[in-house]
Amino acid sequence: MSLSATVLKQKVGIAAAQRVQSGMVVGLGTGSTTAFAIEEIGRRLKAGEIKDIVGVPTSFQASVLAKQYGIPLVTLDDVSGVDLAIDGADEVDPHKNLIKGGGAAHTREKVVDYLAKQFIVVVDQSKLVDRLGSTYPVPIEVIPMATAPVMRTITALGGKPELRLGVKKDGPIITDQGNFVIDATFAEIANPGELEKTLNNIPGVVENGLFVGAADIILVGEDQNGTAVVREIV
Amino acid sequence: MSLSATVLKQKVGIAAAQRVQSGMVVGLGTGSTTAFAIEEIGRRLKAGEIKDIVGVPTSFQASVLAKQYGIPLVTLDDVSGVDLAIDGADEVDPHKNLIKGGGAAHTREKVVDYLAKQFIVVVDQSKLVDRLGSTYPVPIEVIPMATAPVMRTITALGGKPELRLGVKKDGPIITDQGNFVIDATFAEIANPGELEKTLNNIPGVVENGLFVGAADIILVGEDQNGTAVVREIV
Repeated sequence: MSLSATVLKQKVGIAAAQRVQSGMVVGLGTGSTTAFAIEEIGRRLKAGEIKDIVGVPTSFQASVLAKQYGIPLVTLDDVSGVDLAIDGADEVDPHKNLIKGGGAAHTREKVVDYLAKQFIVVVDQSKLVDRLGSTYPVPIEVIPMATAPVMRTITALGGKPELRLGVKKDGPIITDQGNFVIDATFAEIANPGELEKTLNNIPGVVENGLFVGAADIILVGEDQNGTAVVREIV
Repeated sequence: MSLSATVLKQKVGIAAAQRVQSGMVVGLGTGSTTAFAIEEIGRRLKAGEIKDIVGVPTSFQASVLAKQYGIPLVTLDDVSGVDLAIDGADEVDPHKNLIKGGGAAHTREKVVDYLAKQFIVVVDQSKLVDRLGSTYPVPIEVIPMATAPVMRTITALGGKPELRLGVKKDGPIITDQGNFVIDATFAEIANPGELEKTLNNIPGVVENGLFVGAADIILVGEDQNGTAVVREIV
């Protein structure tokens, strides 16, 4: 019987939290896998295994979880840098490049993750792909008034843009910054680093979900013959 | 006696408005010079000199003025493109590259101006410079939580960042999108096009005020021996 994704996510989330050391400023990512890391950091703090940790949340969700598990929070105004960021991903390619933004939190995540001295990505095995964009579109946060022209520009770049619609919310989803998200499907992303820059230079685009050259370590939760193991890609 | 800047701004604003033709979708810029263009477009509509004009405002201010002068407004969702944009600038270099954003409206302005088939810039002679950045900093709109790290990155790029503070408003100014503006002074901007892209790729930056390769025509209001004339740079 194969393990559930939840078991793998928990295993890898805990493994990432084990790397947090006393005195660190820790970037706290968003999503179901990172949630397990936040829970474990809180447990370790409470158990006295580590101390003097502060967290920088990447979203409202991360902030709520951190408070729930007793991790003191700071903003980027309060610290001169981030020692370690732990965050999930929707896709990871063999070069450790990522697509993020399934939870529409990629703008703040990119601010924190790109700032970190070490950025650890936590995923279950289903997120590994040979090429970015094969299973997941690229999320692009836009200011609402620019939605129509940005969608046309994405089409001109060879992508298929779709405005992300809300569930339990009529109309489009709204990000924590008050913006929209366009999901852009590309048949092939030949050069993810170039596309990341090109998309950010479309007027009205706040940030896109391509994270190229940013991740230092990928921790993958894998099901090896019914046992959950964590594989490290450096 | 030399003419006031206001006289030159009015002269050049009216000259730009004269280029609007019936049936056009017109991008309406922000600022004191463009305000004269909006007023003149309204006058021409009312006088029957032109008809079937719609305006796309680049700010709350432009929207208010357009309504005041009777120009019907649409959003970018309503039109497939923009025929002509008229907008001001804080600096114009000999290659028709601009610094904009003194009024903190450069993000929406860039969306509209870059979209226009023809982008006309209206300035008085005081805005002409040999090199961008010589009299004016580069305005950079940022999401508030990223202010501190973006300022550090600007410093690392050789700039002097300053958070723009409000007047008649305590603390920082807030843009029409709810963000902050950092004014970055660079001793020398060797390659404005490169800097425009570099700044936009700093996580947390929404848009910056360098407009490189976008303007088609510069209309300059000049004082020639006490007479206000409009010089055209193509």
